[in-house]
Amino acid sequence: MLGAVIHAPGDVRVEERDTPKIIHPTDAVIRTVAACVCGSDLWDYRGINPVTAPTPMGHEYVGVVEEVGDQVTLIKPGQFVIGSFFASDNTCEICRAGYQSSCVHREYVGAGGAQAERLRVPLADGTLVATPEPPTEDLIPSLLAASDVLGTGWFGAVAAEAGPGRTVAVVGDGAVGLLAVLAARQLGAERIIAMSRHEDRQKLAVEFGATDIVTERGDEGVAKVKELTGGLGAHSVVEAVGTQESMMQAIRSTRPGGHVGYVGVAHGVQLPGEELFYSHVHLHGGPAPVRRFLPQLIDLILSRTIDPGKVFDLTLPLDQAADAYKAMDERRAIKALLRP
Amino acid sequence: MLGAVIHAPGDVRVEERDTPKIIHPTDAVIRTVAACVCGSDLWDYRGINPVTAPTPMGHEYVGVVEEVGDQVTLIKPGQFVIGSFFASDNTCEICRAGYQSSCVHREYVGAGGAQAERLRVPLADGTLVATPEPPTEDLIPSLLAASDVLGTGWFGAVAAEAGPGRTVAVVGDGAVGLLAVLAARQLGAERIIAMSRHEDRQKLAVEFGATDIVTERGDEGVAKVKELTGGLGAHSVVEAVGTQESMMQAIRSTRPGGHVGYVGVAHGVQLPGEELFYSHVHLHGGPAPVRRFLPQLIDLILSRTIDPGKVFDLTLPLDQAADAYKAMDERRAIKALLRP
Repeated sequence: MLGAVIHAPGDVRVEERDTPKIIHPTDAVIRTVAACVCGSDLWDYRGINPVTAPTPMGHEYVGVVEEVGDQVTLIKPGQFVIGSFFASDNTCEICRAGYQSSCVHREYVGAGGAQAERLRVPLADGTLVATPEPPTEDLIPSLLAASDVLGTGWFGAVAAEAGPGRTVAVVGDGAVGLLAVLAARQLGAERIIAMSRHEDRQKLAVEFGATDIVTERGDEGVAKVKELTGGLGAHSVVEAVGTQESMMQAIRSTRPGGHVGYVGVAHGVQLPGEELFYSHVHLHGGPAPVRRFLPQLIDLILSRTIDPGKVFDLTLPLDQAADAYKAMDERRAIKALLRP
Repeated sequence: MLGAVIHAPGDVRVEERDTPKIIHPTDAVIRTVAACVCGSDLWDYRGINPVTAPTPMGHEYVGVVEEVGDQVTLIKPGQFVIGSFFASDNTCEICRAGYQSSCVHREYVGAGGAQAERLRVPLADGTLVATPEPPTEDLIPSLLAASDVLGTGWFGAVAAEAGPGRTVAVVGDGAVGLLAVLAARQLGAERIIAMSRHEDRQKLAVEFGATDIVTERGDEGVAKVKELTGGLGAHSVVEAVGTQESMMQAIRSTRPGGHVGYVGVAHGVQLPGEELFYSHVHLHGGPAPVRRFLPQLIDLILSRTIDPGKVFDLTLPLDQAADAYKAMDERRAIKALLRP
């Protein structure tokens, strides 16, 4: 089968790979209907994460189940399914508390490389959620978004305790940040400040529910958020980048007693303990437990209440994955969808 | 009047100071009935915080109101009052959200030095809470504890979301840590693990409600907490020290999705962003908004439901403040009470 493999920074190739098979009796193998390129894939593409060996890429997927292991009872061949980047049993104490991405049996699904024609999904019963019937073609981008980027933005907004009466600021205008805006709107936030310097992304942020746009960054961005919130800072701030600057911008934009939800994968971040102590903010985040939210997100998509698929502004066949990475790296695309 | 002044590390003297007066119409001046030495005072005493000029010491106090400014309407001369280390208006948006120690008008009461015969308390109406009648002598240590050390331990337990069904671990066996144990018990925690290597403190921890004692520290302490919690870590961990080691011990002792409440004043702490991200813990803390809890804590003390005053294992007249510092520095006393 064909699959995308990174060989070195900037060097993604679609090549023949071994077709995945059932290894454990709790596995499923799916035929990938759509996959995509994640902002976090760019850490490898840009050489910020080292690439030491050819590595299959991709961890976001929707597909049709082809085969299941002997111990899989809930998921059936032929079902259209959405999964997340971490496989989880969905029964352990950590899963039941809603932290499936820290499941005691978690496995990284992306290790198999979802930007491919087939994908092995471990712990299929705990990881995959099937739609009641095969979705229409136009819903596929949104369902694919639920697999990671929507689930991650949603977790950011939940972790930041976005809700009625709250002012929410979102640091980062990538797909996750934009979908955190959508999530904050769905969660009932009163005011949503999107921090973005790119016109196309600002436009999408407003479409998703942003009430204010702040173009300033760093200390100036913080000052602007404070100016918009009576000098106090936002109640809830979603951090969707993962750098030192963006984390500090998020913390400093939050009022005392407010909540920072951080979902940008942290790279080289060191949080100064004393500043954090006196900031009085709540800090919560990490790899989104997408599985917690999947049933609700799928419902919202199938009922056409939300349209998160709008973040995909480039669709390419799988064999042009290299172009998809390039377009995102150069910020010509917000997010690229790949069709095997 | 007499008051304690630090002149250099290790050099605390009780000397004649100007008697405080009403400066602002929202001030009160109280006659100090009892004050005490805080673990955080030892940062100065040990020279970890620089001492650049003679500085009045102390920020924990109970007393009788002597005089109030023209705009003070709730607090009256003659009342027995308890206040906290930060003065707060108790009416701003931040106060109303329960973060009085980040009040937009906050002032550090300790700047006036509470280890003294008199103390000026700014924003008296928002800061002080009066008892319905003068308390009996035996209740004074507990009411004094409410002023900071109990309120701080309580906030740590609340920030860590201690409650029914939860296993709570407490890092730090100073007075704050011990009272976090008491708080966790009052909040209904199922199991309370006190981390302590000192027999007298272990004994008090058990008296306050600890169900388990862990004597190991650092990675070994973490391993022990995990062993006691089915490999997962505690639901709630209170950090009551403020060092890099204790913060990391607290974070690593917490299960994914669990809560760290940190109230030890951070000194030189740098939190590694990537580890924090993957830990999935909630982090909250800072200078305790003691004022939020004072009415409830005073009720629990006056009804003799709790006896936090037990943390005072040394009582000295004010003019022996130097001995009180020395005893705490040498860990001969958990906490020293001073009587002017």
